[in-house]
Amino acid sequence: MVEPTRLSLNTATVRERWTLRQCIEGCVRHGIGGIAPWRDMLAACGVDEATRLIAGHGLTVTGLCRGGMFPAETAEGRRQAIDDNLRAIDEAAAIGAKCLVLVVGSLPQGSRDIAGARAQVRDGIAAVLDHARAARVPLAIEPLHPMYAGDRSCVNTMAEANALCEELGEGVGIALDVYHVWWDSDLSAQITRAGRNRLLAFHVCDWLVPTRDLLLDRGMMGDGVIDIPAIRAQVEAIGYDGFVEVEIFSHDRWWREDPDLVLGTMVERARTCV
Amino acid sequence: MVEPTRLSLNTATVRERWTLRQCIEGCVRHGIGGIAPWRDMLAACGVDEATRLIAGHGLTVTGLCRGGMFPAETAEGRRQAIDDNLRAIDEAAAIGAKCLVLVVGSLPQGSRDIAGARAQVRDGIAAVLDHARAARVPLAIEPLHPMYAGDRSCVNTMAEANALCEELGEGVGIALDVYHVWWDSDLSAQITRAGRNRLLAFHVCDWLVPTRDLLLDRGMMGDGVIDIPAIRAQVEAIGYDGFVEVEIFSHDRWWREDPDLVLGTMVERARTCV
Repeated sequence: MVEPTRLSLNTATVRERWTLRQCIEGCVRHGIGGIAPWRDMLAACGVDEATRLIAGHGLTVTGLCRGGMFPAETAEGRRQAIDDNLRAIDEAAAIGAKCLVLVVGSLPQGSRDIAGARAQVRDGIAAVLDHARAARVPLAIEPLHPMYAGDRSCVNTMAEANALCEELGEGVGIALDVYHVWWDSDLSAQITRAGRNRLLAFHVCDWLVPTRDLLLDRGMMGDGVIDIPAIRAQVEAIGYDGFVEVEIFSHDRWWREDPDLVLGTMVERARTCV
Repeated sequence: MVEPTRLSLNTATVRERWTLRQCIEGCVRHGIGGIAPWRDMLAACGVDEATRLIAGHGLTVTGLCRGGMFPAETAEGRRQAIDDNLRAIDEAAAIGAKCLVLVVGSLPQGSRDIAGARAQVRDGIAAVLDHARAARVPLAIEPLHPMYAGDRSCVNTMAEANALCEELGEGVGIALDVYHVWWDSDLSAQITRAGRNRLLAFHVCDWLVPTRDLLLDRGMMGDGVIDIPAIRAQVEAIGYDGFVEVEIFSHDRWWREDPDLVLGTMVERARTCV
């Protein structure tokens, strides 16, 4: 049972219908204590205005989505990715985000070298890490489900994320989304390995059976097969007491609903299914 | 470079258009040395007739697809699954299959207990193992991609398959399909852990970017992002010298083609992309 004061709205959940300002006001209306904006919605609102609105309503920014996407075919492409991540770190600092979520990227166009992509990810994070440390913005590597290994992320398990963190050192942690890691028989051990300090964010939604689309068919908590309370118990057992962030990409279901109904459902399900 | 004599046609690759008899004759026409029938196509042909045809043409049966699907909501359901697997073992023995491929199943209806499903899988395999040993039919656990963890298989990595094999002992091995495991940074170590004796089959196809369907959008070798030659080199480094089986579920592309074109493409791509 998670109270709404500990919930955070990832703005992707209602992005088809609400602006960032509407998301902020919606959180306040539903008693939701946290928000995690995406950068395009932040840019549309303006960083200064968003900072003012969020602080004025006393919301916690549980993360900024997202940095990452480091691998590229050319050195110039990799440099552009690094520049973009430096800007993302500045934006995260400006809005007081608890972390910058990294979806790290994967194979460049035409490449089949996933080990090479992983090396580019490590080098990319290393290249922005001093800036992130100086800005006091922790970088949260989000392992994505292996079905995104071809394009979105070559970090696909908690084990891989933990290994990267251990290689890179202070200032890098993990955003654990149950959707990506629920299936892993090694999950519990890897949560313990991560420990309290490395676990920067905890995201929830649900895995639907059947899943009709690789990207846009995530479920509301309780509508799928993930034992979310069991995973929450594991992260709390290592001392995690932060927010529970709800991020649902759902083209055919939740993105079509009235966002107030979506937030109301989130709050109810957080009490019964999380 | 793999010569067609070392290729095997998994009949699912052309199942929409050919019977098992046509598959057998197609393999002969294209110089393909092996075949892996699905049980429904085997039943339609008749086991005796299929055995006669396959032997008459000198084809190797690289596997029978498939046993498994052990977890069920009730004890009666689990008993039925075991009975069906015993029949599958008999069929595999009758046609001289090198192994019975197991797609092990996952969460029963209404369940969120994946650890429980894994225990049911272990118990189910254990229950049929004596029969398989007596029939000299090795059971080949096929780890399926984590995107099938909710319904088709709760064994999703080579590490999990290796652990199961080590628990169950002689008579159980692994069918490695590059489609399911290519993304895993632990793959090479787990192939070494498996070793020659445990690796019972090697399946290929390709991961397309984008992938438009979780089940029926697999690619022809060379059309996707898997470094198949690198994985083949790893399995050959541990001494695997068996067949390379081609299994492609492709509703919108290869299932629509003339099967002779599909087999011709298989043979060509085996020379250039495998």
